[in-house]
Amino acid sequence: MAGTKWVYGFDEVAEAEKQAGGDWEGVRALLGGKGANLGDMTRLGVPVPPGYTVTTEACLAYLAGGEAFPPGCWDQIEEALGRVEKSTGKRFGDPENPLLVSCRSGAKFSMPGMMDTVLNIGMNDEVAAGLARLTGDERFVYDSYRRLVQMFGAVVLGQPDEVFEEVLEEHRREAGVATDSELPAERLKAIVVEFRRLAPGFPTEPKEQLRLATEAVFRSWNGKRAIDYRNAAGIAHDLGTAVNIQTMVFGNMGNGSATGVAMSRNATTGEPKIEGDYLINAQGEDVVAGIRATKPLEQLADDLPEMYDQFAAIAARLERHYREMQDMEFTVERGKLWILQTRAGKRTAQAAVRIAADMADEGLITREEAVMRVKPDQVDFFLHPQFSAESLKEASQLAKGLNVSPGAAVGLAAFDADLAERWAKVDGKPTIMVRPETKPDDVHGMLAAEGILTSRGGRTSHAALVARQFGKPAVVGVAELDIDMAARTMTVAGQVIKEGDWISIDGTSGVVYLGRLATVVPDISDPWLMKLLSWADELRTLRVRANADYPVDAERARRYGAEGIGLTRTEHMFFETERLPLVQKMIMTTDPAERAEALEGLLPYQRADFEGLFRAMDGLPVIIRLIDPPLHEFLPSAADLTKRFIDLKVEEAKGAQVAAEIAEVEGVLARVEALHEANPMLGTRGVRLGIMIPELTRMQVRAIFEAACNVAREGGKVHPEVMIPLTSHVNELKWQREVLEAEARQVMAEQGLQVDYMFGTMIEIPRAALTADEVAQYAEFFSFGTNDLTQTTFGISRDDAESGFLMRYLQEGILEENPFATLDRPGVGRIMRLAVEGGRATRPDLEIGICGEHGGDPRSIALCHELGLDYVSCSPFRVPIARLAAAQAAVEMPR
Amino acid sequence: MAGTKWVYGFDEVAEAEKQAGGDWEGVRALLGGKGANLGDMTRLGVPVPPGYTVTTEACLAYLAGGEAFPPGCWDQIEEALGRVEKSTGKRFGDPENPLLVSCRSGAKFSMPGMMDTVLNIGMNDEVAAGLARLTGDERFVYDSYRRLVQMFGAVVLGQPDEVFEEVLEEHRREAGVATDSELPAERLKAIVVEFRRLAPGFPTEPKEQLRLATEAVFRSWNGKRAIDYRNAAGIAHDLGTAVNIQTMVFGNMGNGSATGVAMSRNATTGEPKIEGDYLINAQGEDVVAGIRATKPLEQLADDLPEMYDQFAAIAARLERHYREMQDMEFTVERGKLWILQTRAGKRTAQAAVRIAADMADEGLITREEAVMRVKPDQVDFFLHPQFSAESLKEASQLAKGLNVSPGAAVGLAAFDADLAERWAKVDGKPTIMVRPETKPDDVHGMLAAEGILTSRGGRTSHAALVARQFGKPAVVGVAELDIDMAARTMTVAGQVIKEGDWISIDGTSGVVYLGRLATVVPDISDPWLMKLLSWADELRTLRVRANADYPVDAERARRYGAEGIGLTRTEHMFFETERLPLVQKMIMTTDPAERAEALEGLLPYQRADFEGLFRAMDGLPVIIRLIDPPLHEFLPSAADLTKRFIDLKVEEAKGAQVAAEIAEVEGVLARVEALHEANPMLGTRGVRLGIMIPELTRMQVRAIFEAACNVAREGGKVHPEVMIPLTSHVNELKWQREVLEAEARQVMAEQGLQVDYMFGTMIEIPRAALTADEVAQYAEFFSFGTNDLTQTTFGISRDDAESGFLMRYLQEGILEENPFATLDRPGVGRIMRLAVEGGRATRPDLEIGICGEHGGDPRSIALCHELGLDYVSCSPFRVPIARLAAAQAAVEMPR
Repeated sequence: MAGTKWVYGFDEVAEAEKQAGGDWEGVRALLGGKGANLGDMTRLGVPVPPGYTVTTEACLAYLAGGEAFPPGCWDQIEEALGRVEKSTGKRFGDPENPLLVSCRSGAKFSMPGMMDTVLNIGMNDEVAAGLARLTGDERFVYDSYRRLVQMFGAVVLGQPDEVFEEVLEEHRREAGVATDSELPAERLKAIVVEFRRLAPGFPTEPKEQLRLATEAVFRSWNGKRAIDYRNAAGIAHDLGTAVNIQTMVFGNMGNGSATGVAMSRNATTGEPKIEGDYLINAQGEDVVAGIRATKPLEQLADDLPEMYDQFAAIAARLERHYREMQDMEFTVERGKLWILQTRAGKRTAQAAVRIAADMADEGLITREEAVMRVKPDQVDFFLHPQFSAESLKEASQLAKGLNVSPGAAVGLAAFDADLAERWAKVDGKPTIMVRPETKPDDVHGMLAAEGILTSRGGRTSHAALVARQFGKPAVVGVAELDIDMAARTMTVAGQVIKEGDWISIDGTSGVVYLGRLATVVPDISDPWLMKLLSWADELRTLRVRANADYPVDAERARRYGAEGIGLTRTEHMFFETERLPLVQKMIMTTDPAERAEALEGLLPYQRADFEGLFRAMDGLPVIIRLIDPPLHEFLPSAADLTKRFIDLKVEEAKGAQVAAEIAEVEGVLARVEALHEANPMLGTRGVRLGIMIPELTRMQVRAIFEAACNVAREGGKVHPEVMIPLTSHVNELKWQREVLEAEARQVMAEQGLQVDYMFGTMIEIPRAALTADEVAQYAEFFSFGTNDLTQTTFGISRDDAESGFLMRYLQEGILEENPFATLDRPGVGRIMRLAVEGGRATRPDLEIGICGEHGGDPRSIALCHELGLDYVSCSPFRVPIARLAAAQAAVEMPR
Repeated sequence: MAGTKWVYGFDEVAEAEKQAGGDWEGVRALLGGKGANLGDMTRLGVPVPPGYTVTTEACLAYLAGGEAFPPGCWDQIEEALGRVEKSTGKRFGDPENPLLVSCRSGAKFSMPGMMDTVLNIGMNDEVAAGLARLTGDERFVYDSYRRLVQMFGAVVLGQPDEVFEEVLEEHRREAGVATDSELPAERLKAIVVEFRRLAPGFPTEPKEQLRLATEAVFRSWNGKRAIDYRNAAGIAHDLGTAVNIQTMVFGNMGNGSATGVAMSRNATTGEPKIEGDYLINAQGEDVVAGIRATKPLEQLADDLPEMYDQFAAIAARLERHYREMQDMEFTVERGKLWILQTRAGKRTAQAAVRIAADMADEGLITREEAVMRVKPDQVDFFLHPQFSAESLKEASQLAKGLNVSPGAAVGLAAFDADLAERWAKVDGKPTIMVRPETKPDDVHGMLAAEGILTSRGGRTSHAALVARQFGKPAVVGVAELDIDMAARTMTVAGQVIKEGDWISIDGTSGVVYLGRLATVVPDISDPWLMKLLSWADELRTLRVRANADYPVDAERARRYGAEGIGLTRTEHMFFETERLPLVQKMIMTTDPAERAEALEGLLPYQRADFEGLFRAMDGLPVIIRLIDPPLHEFLPSAADLTKRFIDLKVEEAKGAQVAAEIAEVEGVLARVEALHEANPMLGTRGVRLGIMIPELTRMQVRAIFEAACNVAREGGKVHPEVMIPLTSHVNELKWQREVLEAEARQVMAEQGLQVDYMFGTMIEIPRAALTADEVAQYAEFFSFGTNDLTQTTFGISRDDAESGFLMRYLQEGILEENPFATLDRPGVGRIMRLAVEGGRATRPDLEIGICGEHGGDPRSIALCHELGLDYVSCSPFRVPIARLAAAQAAVEMPR
């Protein structure tokens, strides 16, 4: 150990690097993260207040050696201090020109607040008096002094911080002020005296202060807080901490001094121009505290033009060096600029996109790096309205629910779909549709409304799915919300909102506000976003498709960059006003002729929808899924029917002539009950329905192929892919394929046209994934339905769970995240991998995609990339996000 | 091909074997199965009517050569015929002593009825006249003649068989008789004449008959029927058929002739003594037709003592040779015994067991072979009552449903549980409980009844599960049954059965009978069964445990050979009369104190049950599963409550004072609705319940450990294994284990005793299987819950499916078998394998078993053996079956 170098000046970083074999990680291990960075900035020529770092090795030697400095260490510290005195021209303990230093811990990995800091070391009565003369600011000097005593008392002497705080409080009370910064200088002087009494071991000798503080920081490595933190964060206990001793500089030494914070680019818009705030003759905390009005950084060019130019040059140098927009603290002490700190700057989504794009164009970073710099969810900002920052400041928050469909919406509370539609369409009033939960026959109201708010339901409830599909902001499952449908009110914590009152909802955060908040509407055509997404498109290997049920969705999806449709839910078309009666007739009848007639009535509607989709997606593939949900979903609910039945029975008992109505309700109820299943999610739906009612499959297939032939005849390029839902056994597919191909051949023969198509299946049942090698014998493509696959793999009914035990699981940490939001890698991810391997073993060119909600979730997209999928399909509003996420996955894991 | 041997006499089988390189399969390929066997019997010295086989090679050469005999073939046939003439002393076409032969196809694999046969070849007018003189039986002779013409006409000449049948029918009508065998000789003579007119190509020359018949049999290999059969059965098309030409022998040539059928052992009881039926001076078909009263085989010892002795010796020789009980046809022609056929004999379950055990004791077969000779389901015979064969002959079948719990039951139809219990317990009358479906609060009636009959529900409905559990015969899902609860009747096809009428149900076949059928009650203590099962126990490597909820079940299970309990469903104990109110109170209350009180009330009951189980299973492991079903199952159904609510509202409308009752019903209904889940099977149950209501887990754990300590204190050896249901994520287990171990430690501290226990989990959710490596970190044992695992892996709700699309799937062949009856190997089997591999990778000594219904299914048991499970657990009544099935699996796939 003799001859070991325990101390590195900030200007000796090159030596440390040599010592670490040229490895910057080694430098960080030796000097800690903070010490390494201070050294790095110093080497860069940035004016950092001079100082030095006592190494982590010194810390470990100190702790291992029974809390004694290793040989030579203290000598090196004194020597380094001497160099600092020389370079600053100040002297430790010299009242005429005193050097004050800070003593801060700095481990290899950041452990914010876990270890100790002592500021203003070097202060004592004489130095304070001298400094007061120098600065003319007694308040500042004695505040600094009392801070030293307080920190020293707590950190070094182990005095509880409360005893100091009590004294401060007493003085505030006596002075009749609310904050310490309002205490006058005289009181601060008195406080210093009292503090000194409370910290009897406080040394007046500056070097003694420094020695004790350094030792205290070493010891804090093994403090309980630090150990707990390392255990939680998984940081090794044998790293030790370095200690950084740095000159204190002061921006309050007259009008030639200043202090401020600044960004190297505009953090709100991303404009490439430094921006910030500063104060002349002030301390750093004055800028943050907001007591004095700060000035915008531009004015520094007038106030201290030389300093401004220096700072601008340094900001540019730091940005070039770190290749990232910087957030800096600076102080000007009597005409000398010091940079106290620099780090990557926080920014808005809009700024993040522009800065990344600009930096790539400037050649500062590569296009790949630019793509990696923007979080996919930040793209959301360009797709949905947001509340303005000003309006949020004064907003009154009512409640918080699940943020299931992003964007801000403002409107009149409307408690049913018809009213929401009437207000919106007839009266031209914006509305928020409020319901306990939504059902398929609420869709017209949801479409007309600006946003949707429900008190029940989870992330994949009907309301959430429909809202995301149509890009309507939605907040669901707001349990605090008590909706009284009879009174047409909702109540939150005693506050009653009536129908027609203004409310605002934020689907991005899940917050519900009272009143009418102002919104800002960003735009996807932002040129920097377009540029960034075009780079993403070049990088990604995953294709991106959209889930779209209507031509208008398909058109939007294409505008947003979708490369086809990954899922059309044909049954959604069944819920429209003029179609539902035909669907219900088909379900209610037991007469094959009547059923055939009802299906024939539906055919033209389906065909027209498909034509619209094919036209919108001209030249691109369109996956059409045959009917999936259980039939009872198309009938009125048993609860509603029972309610009606009870009312009628009571009327009858009172003498009303309602026998005919009762009989009718009983008839529908009987059919609803006959269709009732204990677990409809695992019941007669999907391909099972197609096998039980093959004429339904035939009608849908006819509609698809008639539409395809019609559009092809117009000159369109159609690529239909017919998809079977809920397959669990290869034979289901084989059976359905026979029905389908016979009908398709017949239609094409009738039309005299050949249309190329593919036949495939959803993979949403574990058995289909496990037997994917067999399933691929009859499927030309797979599409993972990860909503249902997550339900069946976990054995969880999502709607039941998300309003129940799943929330408890997330609270208790039993699950780290909601598997319906982000794909569960060990379970669902593993079974997906088995399916990919099995399917491709049988059919190497098998097209594989995902069309569950996860298709729009960045982390799930990364998993899909890793699994080798061909595409992801998501809501049109998530297409740009998916494009970016897919590119990031490709960069992180090249195929 | 020149020099090829195309024809083998039955006495040349050794030569054929040499030709085939000593490979018997090769002999079968060359001579066909029938030809090889006839040769085999001949070599054995069994008197088989002489003949020869034209090889399959000859057939293939014939077909390949444009339907011409290959060179030398016909010469060899004539030569072989000459040898037959010589050995029989008869001559082809000689009216004085005519040789008649049959010509039959015989391929390598049996294709019953698929190819052609011609009998009585060698007959013409002169031979017929001679034979009539010889036998004195003109009727027989001309019947034989007309058969030849008819078969030849149809098979060789391609005349439709109908034209012959029309002639026969005309004659029957004219003679006023119902069957051909009643036609007098004169008519048969006339028929021959008419048949000859209808078959103008019929050759009178015997050798020409033979040649054409042989060629026809060759050609029949490529007949449509045969090709279709081979396609269906997966038999190759290039094998060809052999042709067997065999001397016809006649048992009706006077009193020195006879014909009969016999078994080498008693086919009903298994007694080692030949038994059978015969007739003197008769043809084989007379014995089968039942027109003349047959004599028991013993009397042959008086009628034809030498023949009897010869036959007995041959039967013994054949049994020794084939090492299997034989079913033989024989004919005595004028003092000469001929064996026409021998094959393995069909037998009853009882006989199968005794024969296998006896043969092993006799040293004829090994014990392993004996164990393999009995089908596991045959053991069921010894466990359940059966209808007597006599009673079944006259029984009137009402309907057929699902055979969900085996055995026969007879009783008075009782339409509710209370009545069933009263009749059985108070009035001492046997009852069959009849319900549309059963629910937990029907259990007391089910226990009191002899059997259970429901019109709804599937193989895993409540009725089926409970019935199997308690060994009650049950037939469920009898859709034809229309139960009118108001009228207390059930109607099947117009027939009305009133409450109190006698009915009989067969849970083994699923048939429901009207009236009171007689039953026989076999006994598991059958000595041969005991012997066979003890051999099975020596062979098997899988252990067999039982699913038992009550001490009485556990005792029975142990009697039947269970080696522990694999599943105790603790919640079943909750349904008993005095406990249910406490359970309901626990569910209805929202007050923690009230809930605690209810749980405290339940504790002594649970503890007492567990004590009983531990005592019954002294020294053996007992797996206790914590509560599994969703709480709403313990409350009245929403439908019943709604019905009651409607009645009350109507009463109220009519002026009744029922406000209080309405409020009460509304209260319960509200709680039931709050607990309502869209898919309860995937909802708040199992471990989820334990996490939501940890006090419930604690109560159950306390009951288990208090019981264990109490029994251990008595000197009992207790091995509790605590099992968590429905785990999908390792953290659920980790969380529950903490709750459990804390409580267990506390109880053991209170009791001052240490009890060794294991902690484990059901594997019944795909995710648990997929992440078994993680799950095994906290589980010391796995138990596959294959009912739920099948549901989740297939995405099928069993109750919905078994009364719906699953039946359609089975009909359509989309599924080959019901996956709830036999484990689905490619899907569920694969995920089980992943779980076994994952679990053992983490914990090599992980104990793994199965406790789903599949644990008692022989084919599923074989899969469990293959997967390397440690044990299977099944209903006590299936334990003996499982012991046998496990042994068979071990023999077929040694570990």
